[in-house]
Parts: sequence; C-alpha cells; structure tokens
Amino acid sequence: MRVKLLISYDGTDFVGWQRQPNGRSVQGEIERAMARLLGGAVSVQGAGRTDAGVHAMAQAASFEAELNLPPERLAYALNNLLPSDVRVIAAEPAADDFHARFSPSRKEYRYFIAPGVKPTPFDARYVWHCPGGLDYDAMAAAAGTLQGEHDFRSFCAKSLVVSSYVRTLYAAEFHQAKPEEAPPPLQLLAARGDLYMLRLVGNGFIYKMVRLLTGALVKLGEGKLTPAEFAQALAYERPQPPAPAAPPGGLYLWGLVYWEKNADLP
Amino acid sequence: MRVKLLISYDGTDFVGWQRQPNGRSVQGEIERAMARLLGGAVSVQGAGRTDAGVHAMAQAASFEAELNLPPERLAYALNNLLPSDVRVIAAEPAADDFHARFSPSRKEYRYFIAPGVKPTPFDARYVWHCPGGLDYDAMAAAAGTLQGEHDFRSFCAKSLVVSSYVRTLYAAEFHQAKPEEAPPPLQLLAARGDLYMLRLVGNGFIYKMVRLLTGALVKLGEGKLTPAEFAQALAYERPQPPAPAAPPGGLYLWGLVYWEKNADLP
Repeated sequence: MRVKLLISYDGTDFVGWQRQPNGRSVQGEIERAMARLLGGAVSVQGAGRTDAGVHAMAQAASFEAELNLPPERLAYALNNLLPSDVRVIAAEPAADDFHARFSPSRKEYRYFIAPGVKPTPFDARYVWHCPGGLDYDAMAAAAGTLQGEHDFRSFCAKSLVVSSYVRTLYAAEFHQAKPEEAPPPLQLLAARGDLYMLRLVGNGFIYKMVRLLTGALVKLGEGKLTPAEFAQALAYERPQPPAPAAPPGGLYLWGLVYWEKNADLP
Repeated sequence: MRVKLLISYDGTDFVGWQRQPNGRSVQGEIERAMARLLGGAVSVQGAGRTDAGVHAMAQAASFEAELNLPPERLAYALNNLLPSDVRVIAAEPAADDFHARFSPSRKEYRYFIAPGVKPTPFDARYVWHCPGGLDYDAMAAAAGTLQGEHDFRSFCAKSLVVSSYVRTLYAAEFHQAKPEEAPPPLQLLAARGDLYMLRLVGNGFIYKMVRLLTGALVKLGEGKLTPAEFAQALAYERPQPPAPAAPPGGLYLWGLVYWEKNADLP
C-alpha cells in the first residue's frame, strides 16, 4: 500500500534530508528504521530536500510497502527505532498515485531572525542572530513584493541548472513572530518580542532560494541594500545574489498542502 | 588584575569544558577570544570541568590579566568574539586570591528527565527521554537520602583515583520541574508538566557522579533497582555503579556560590 508520513526533525546533525554516500541523512535514518520494522528495503521520497542544518516542522514523505501493521501504529513503531532528533508525527494511507515530491502541493518555509542582544547559547542552532538594528518596515515592504510569479534566478545557487527558475509565491510576509508561529526552541524568544520571521508559501522553491532571499532582506534591513536594488534582483536585472545566503539553522520547512490530482488548484 | 567570569554554554558541540589537544573545548574558545581581545595568551580556570555534551547555565571561571578595558565591558567584547553556543553572562573584578576552581564554593547541578511521550526532535540534546512510566515518589524518596556526607565511591567512573570520595550534599531533591527551574530549551516541556529534575547542591562532585546517581534513580523509578540496593550503593557496600551513567545532554552545571576566605562556611 501507499503511505504518507509527516516528519519533524532538528536538522543540526544531518547532512540534509537526502540520502548520501557519507554522512547521516534524515531519509537514510527513516529508511533504516523502516527496513528494521518491515524486514526489507523501502525507498522513502520526501517533499522537500532540505539542506544540512535546515529543520522541518512537518516534512512530508511517501513510500510503497506491504505493511504488517495498521498505518496508524506505524508512527509509534518508527519512533521507537528512530534517533531522538527525528520524529514521525503521523502516518496515514495515501492514494495510489500520491507522491510526496511530485503531487501538486504548496510548500511553506519560515526563516527566523533574532535581532539585538545575543540570544542564549541554547538558541544558536535554531535562529539567525543579527546583532545590529534592522529596518523592519523596509524588510516587510520588500518581502511583500515577493508575492506572485517571479523568475528567481538571482536567488538560487549560482551553479544550479534547472528547467525553469519561475516560481509562484502565494504568501510572502515579514513580521514579528508570535509564540504560536515559532518552532518549540524559539517560542520563549517570541514571547519576549525578540523574534522576527519571513514566511513564504509557494508552489516550489529552488535550491538556496529562501536563504538567499533572507540574506538579501537582512542586508536591506541593515541599510546596505536599497529597495531599488532588491527590486532589480527580483526582476533578474542583476545576475548575482545581492547578499550571501542566510545560515541554515534559522530555516524551517514548515508544512505542505496537497491536492487531489484533478482538483482545481488555488 | 584578577577577574571572575560567569559563562553559559550549550555543551552539545564541545569535547567538554577543558582544553584538549584535539577538539573544541569551552575553555579553549574563551582563551582564544581573550587572546584576540587582550593581545596575549591568558589561562582561564573553570570551576567545574563539565564533560562532552554537558551544559552550563552559569559556569564560573577566573583569570589574571592586565585589562585594556573596564571589566564591565569585557562580557560584551568577549561575546562579540565567541561562537554562538558560548556566552559570557558577566565579568567582574575578583579578590587577588580568588580562584574559580579552588576557592571554597557550593556547586549546583541539575539533571532533567522527560518521561512518557517522546519530546519534539528539538529537545533531544537537552533532556533525557525515559519512555516508560517511572515511580516518581520512590525516586524522590531515594534522592532525599543523598543529602549529607557520603562516600560516593559507587557513583564515580571506575578508573578514577582521587584522594577522597567523600562529598557533602547540602540539597538533594527530585521533583516535577517548574518552568522557572528549567533551562530555556526545556521551559515549554516544564509548562506542560512533562519535565522532572534532580537537583543536587554540594561542596564538590566527582567525575560522572551526577550522571551515575541519575542513572541509578531512573533504574529505581523503573522498578529494576530496589530502595535497599540503592542504599547499599550509597553505603559503598557494592563496588559497581548500580546503573549506567545517564546521557550527558540532560545535565546542567547550574551555578556556584563562593565565600570569602575566612568566612564561616555554612
């Protein structure tokens, strides 16, 4: 049968989602637990291939296997076998043609920034600390311009070749984060008003796109990039990313929404 | 002049407090930042030599150096040079004969346990997850017997040779942790009532002592060690530790209190 998993992980100690010859990957850990549980190799496909150090509140994944236990018991059984920095939130039967990566979906990413005073040493893996003052209004205005369809060629890894750099963002906002909008390790910072977030919902994201957008927004907030220069990058009038990528620890794959194959896409 | 530092760190990515030929130590990072700031090598002595993976809410350290800035500016300047998983909370002038390790002090350690349902993947480095049910009343009763002067030979690393295994615990308690008693990454767990803590205040702690005591208390809470066997270990009637050491991530050096040289010690 076809099964859909929802998975949360702390990306700090992983080389990323994707299985690699060397290094500890989330996909590899889940496939290993699955093999122990089901007694045979299973290939698990994730929705978003998060990078080393990037976290997931709710990554989606799918696989095809004969289960020897009801799907609703699968999450519990897998969690007993998985290391403590990965957790299966839910497992449920999926349609035969469901594929976590290729079925039509919206993805949501959130990037968290702690401005001002250095956060506690326990926050370091989970947020980007930006010590200087930032112009939040300018950042919010620039983030708003990301909504809609754009060619994001200025905001992806230089070496990358993909068939299209055009993506649609259905939501793009930058604001102070409320505790309930933040991941568990950052909810205290949020409650104190010391946390800001970039929230992006789109039909797809190119490699490094969110971190390069965040890097550019922070540079703009620092007054080192003008709104006009940001707009030029978004219009692909400048080939180089306008700022280095923000560090991976502040980025979270927040969730996914899937549609039936023939449903009207919003 | 002589200076006292208060330091907080996330121990996950350190080989421990103590400088070592290979690997990243907290002492090494602070000495490196100090050398950059003051332009010369400085030896920094810590109060407790925490192990790899063990955290500190308030480690104390002392050093002797000619400062080219007022001590109250030192914390800010050091934090700008230190990596994000170490933070200097305070720096202040100390008496000429003050030594963080050898001046008379009480140390407090706390060990945190999350029973029941697996915590989020973001908690894994900061707490020991004990999935089974635990007999908290039995654990609290056994923890209470630790108070006072004891020969802790059954609760230290086997290979260890020290001049005396006798230590005095002024406080020894096990109970549900309130949010304000927990470190930042665990305050949400505490607020939900899902966190327990062992709190020990003593005149000294032997290598691995707190983690071996915690391991034995959890084994007792699981019903796999009787209160009589625990008492025998505490009376050094059994040479072996009654249980393996609890993992390092749940342990926090919580704080230190120092006295003047000729003060009456409590």
